Amino acid sequence: MVFEVKIKDLLGRIGKLKTKSGIIETPALLPVINPRKLDIKPKQFFEEFGYKALITNAYLLKKHFEREVLEKTVHGFLDYKGVIMTDSGAYQILRYGEIEVQPMEILEFQKRIKSDIGVILDIPTGWRASRKHAEWTVKETLNRAQQAVKYLQEKNERTLWVGPIQGGNHLDLVEFSAKEMGKLPFDVYALGSPTEVMEQYFFDVLVEMIITAKRNLPADKPFHLFGAGHPFMFSFAVALGCDLFDSASYALYAKDDRYITETGTIRLENLRYFLCNCPVCRSLTPEELKEKEKGEREFLLMKHNLYACKVEIERIKQSIVEGRLWELLELRARSHPALLQAFKVLAKYSKLLAKETPVYKSRGIFIFEDTSLIRPEIITHKRRLLEYYEKPEKAEILLLLPQPDSKPFHKSSQYKKVEKILDELGKDGLNVEKIHVCFYSAPFGVIPLEVDDVYPLSQFEVAKPYTPTMVKETAKTIVTYAKLKGYSKVLLHPDSSFLNKKVVLWLRRGIGDILIKTTRRKKTWSSKSLEDLKKTLKKVLES
Amino acid sequence: MVFEVKIKDLLGRIGKLKTKSGIIETPALLPVINPRKLDIKPKQFFEEFGYKALITNAYLLKKHFEREVLEKTVHGFLDYKGVIMTDSGAYQILRYGEIEVQPMEILEFQKRIKSDIGVILDIPTGWRASRKHAEWTVKETLNRAQQAVKYLQEKNERTLWVGPIQGGNHLDLVEFSAKEMGKLPFDVYALGSPTEVMEQYFFDVLVEMIITAKRNLPADKPFHLFGAGHPFMFSFAVALGCDLFDSASYALYAKDDRYITETGTIRLENLRYFLCNCPVCRSLTPEELKEKEKGEREFLLMKHNLYACKVEIERIKQSIVEGRLWELLELRARSHPALLQAFKVLAKYSKLLAKETPVYKSRGIFIFEDTSLIRPEIITHKRRLLEYYEKPEKAEILLLLPQPDSKPFHKSSQYKKVEKILDELGKDGLNVEKIHVCFYSAPFGVIPLEVDDVYPLSQFEVAKPYTPTMVKETAKTIVTYAKLKGYSKVLLHPDSSFLNKKVVLWLRRGIGDILIKTTRRKKTWSSKSLEDLKKTLKKVLES
Repeated sequence: MVFEVKIKDLLGRIGKLKTKSGIIETPALLPVINPRKLDIKPKQFFEEFGYKALITNAYLLKKHFEREVLEKTVHGFLDYKGVIMTDSGAYQILRYGEIEVQPMEILEFQKRIKSDIGVILDIPTGWRASRKHAEWTVKETLNRAQQAVKYLQEKNERTLWVGPIQGGNHLDLVEFSAKEMGKLPFDVYALGSPTEVMEQYFFDVLVEMIITAKRNLPADKPFHLFGAGHPFMFSFAVALGCDLFDSASYALYAKDDRYITETGTIRLENLRYFLCNCPVCRSLTPEELKEKEKGEREFLLMKHNLYACKVEIERIKQSIVEGRLWELLELRARSHPALLQAFKVLAKYSKLLAKETPVYKSRGIFIFEDTSLIRPEIITHKRRLLEYYEKPEKAEILLLLPQPDSKPFHKSSQYKKVEKILDELGKDGLNVEKIHVCFYSAPFGVIPLEVDDVYPLSQFEVAKPYTPTMVKETAKTIVTYAKLKGYSKVLLHPDSSFLNKKVVLWLRRGIGDILIKTTRRKKTWSSKSLEDLKKTLKKVLES
Repeated sequence: MVFEVKIKDLLGRIGKLKTKSGIIETPALLPVINPRKLDIKPKQFFEEFGYKALITNAYLLKKHFEREVLEKTVHGFLDYKGVIMTDSGAYQILRYGEIEVQPMEILEFQKRIKSDIGVILDIPTGWRASRKHAEWTVKETLNRAQQAVKYLQEKNERTLWVGPIQGGNHLDLVEFSAKEMGKLPFDVYALGSPTEVMEQYFFDVLVEMIITAKRNLPADKPFHLFGAGHPFMFSFAVALGCDLFDSASYALYAKDDRYITETGTIRLENLRYFLCNCPVCRSLTPEELKEKEKGEREFLLMKHNLYACKVEIERIKQSIVEGRLWELLELRARSHPALLQAFKVLAKYSKLLAKETPVYKSRGIFIFEDTSLIRPEIITHKRRLLEYYEKPEKAEILLLLPQPDSKPFHKSSQYKKVEKILDELGKDGLNVEKIHVCFYSAPFGVIPLEVDDVYPLSQFEVAKPYTPTMVKETAKTIVTYAKLKGYSKVLLHPDSSFLNKKVVLWLRRGIGDILIKTTRRKKTWSSKSLEDLKKTLKKVLES
């Protein structure tokens, strides 16, 4: 097995990728090394910063150092013992137009310099490409991929090879490209050059591109995102299924005097305090850094940026281990409105995300605002409730109680009072087994009493007051549930702080005459309200 | 001047507090030092972690080391050259009931050991105290404060003295306590013992307590929050006006094997990756840390926790400098639903926050979801627009255009098309000066053309799609604005992706017959829509 997935959350996963220079843990960020500018030695990337894999450019290596690299191999040339991926020059095509190398030539070169992960010379579609041009890039890339596969299969290779997906923002072309590329036996697939999309902060577009590619590719293969930019989007890339990504941002931002944080960059001139405890930030003050000469300043900023990027990857991995990747996205989505906009796009793919997310987790879930409503645990609960759940055999009458203050609900002081009422009615000879207690709850909609301690129905925290959308979604679930399960009566014990008059009216329209409010009083759990509840139950049971 | 405020944002501020042991920059976190457990030497707090001030307990010093501390002073005893604040034993009253010291005795003791900041022996109200008990704690604390002031005024003191506010969650008592305490000449005021409120994550209650105290105290004095807990709420404390706070969380969490991050703690057993680059996290792996003996483990965790807390304070200060404290709250509010709930409480105080926030900032503002709608810049814009703004003298007809894609709006390609229409109509001899172009915009509501480059009307980013509340608030502002400014006609150039049919109907009900839609077409900026717009303008101008 070249690639093994260990832990999953959303479409993100922690995995092991086996290469000829060792196993790397994914998700992995491969810093981009410019072979002509080795201010920080590749060795340091491994030893000082902990990057066990990096990416460099085979085209530039060939152009400037061909003989030396062929002689020493790329590992010898760079003096780096970790995993080396080489790009093929496609990025240079995108930026500078044609390049002076043939597809087979650069393939052969990557093989001979003993790259661990090589990339075929694809044609990047670019951003705002015409459909015609986009079609051509997809087809030409596929042609080259087919030729490459044929060539490589004859060679008994140990290098892993990457098949890049093109199509730009023409999603149907991305789909086609992924389906066709997926038929070819590459070790790794990749989304080609979304650099411009990222530079312009069109993260919502990027989400669609990545998901379209991913869902049309073999799921068991690793997926690479070319040219991932700012660390604040790494968590999104991983959550969408990117196992590998490369980034030159540590160097580009340093060149531009920008200091990376997990939520954005800060121009050095605006930085009065360091926001990090890395060796660089502990060795001097922001003022001292500002006074350094450009070269030294850039060097130090690069180092800080590398530390900052690494920590973000660790945070992402820790979140996957804890099953809290969604919580991390909630946070990162508030780094920039463009990221929140991208986060909202996930609503379209909530079922897909739910399918890939473990049903049980060791920690409870946090519900904030509307973005939390599409998280896997809620989608999964609603699907189970509406599609698979069967109410108790004797249940005929649905009693809907508002969500009590403590969890699990059946152990709450509020429910205990209702339980007492049911006991009393039972002792009076009424058939209380006909009553089925469910709680209405934001964000889960409806929670049947007997399953209220199933994860995550007692393992969640929600911020109040509920948003209008949360209330609406709750009401919708109540209506769908009540209609679907065939109760003869639906008794609603009201809580006006949760479901206001308008919503109750809406429920009545949805459920019909069988909906009965148990009390008109305002205080849901007052003894008078509970008396009313008892009277209503008695009446309904006796009728 | 003992205290000088340098930069403000929300109720937060960067200031300088002058003490006899030097000046400290605020907001400052004072780590709690237990004089009986000096595993990390106070000197290290200063030199290694950069804490220039700390707090220790005068009551415990007196009880266990009286002679030695009196002889050496508290600075000599702790071997610490920074600023030392001493608490008086009130926390011990709260936890253990009575203590064996008299109010004047502990005051005298703090003076003699040369504490830089001393606290009178107040009576903490505690959480869920009966009103009667709460009243008593407030009155008794005030009595003691009056006695203390009398005593201290005779002594020509160099110690700064703290007057604690009590009242617990009885906000009227907090108000009374603050007003009365504020009349006494303390150097620092403080909110007494909200520890339990924080331990139970009732941050929404805490917000009310802090704001009630703050707004009834002299604004130019520093304000201390006793027993601030988790770093994820430090930014809220600062944003509400806390200049100083103490926390023992670095030690308490370490004792409990918990690792502090800026958004929560993680139990060491669940920690697979370090999320930090501090010297501790760089010196070993999580696995190695887990294998250490309890004492060593706790020591290392304490150190990491101190580094993590310090960085959070730096982040808060950097945010104030950049005018981005609200952006930091947006992030931190997604650390836990209880914090979002507290954040939402700020809606009640949005005018107060707006009053204290600079009107111009060097960076644009980020608009996420509904919590962003109450941020100072938006409140201020609406207040200016509705209360102070006067439309151009000749303006009679309001033309409402949807927010164009680029900013400033008057330079957008969409507006250029409208400008051309107005030019043409002008050349046809119509009096286009009667037309007043405004943009309807989320989140600002209405932006008159001629001010659209005033900060922050061109310096904001907003996530789409707008939330229902954003749309509603926009519509409300349109109605209020249109009615208030006395236009003869209101022309609405519609954008159904922003204001749907229902909202337009609502606008018509609010504004009345003078509201006219310029087109029925869907594509707002299509040439046909613009033709319709031209026709409508012509008709209205000719009538």
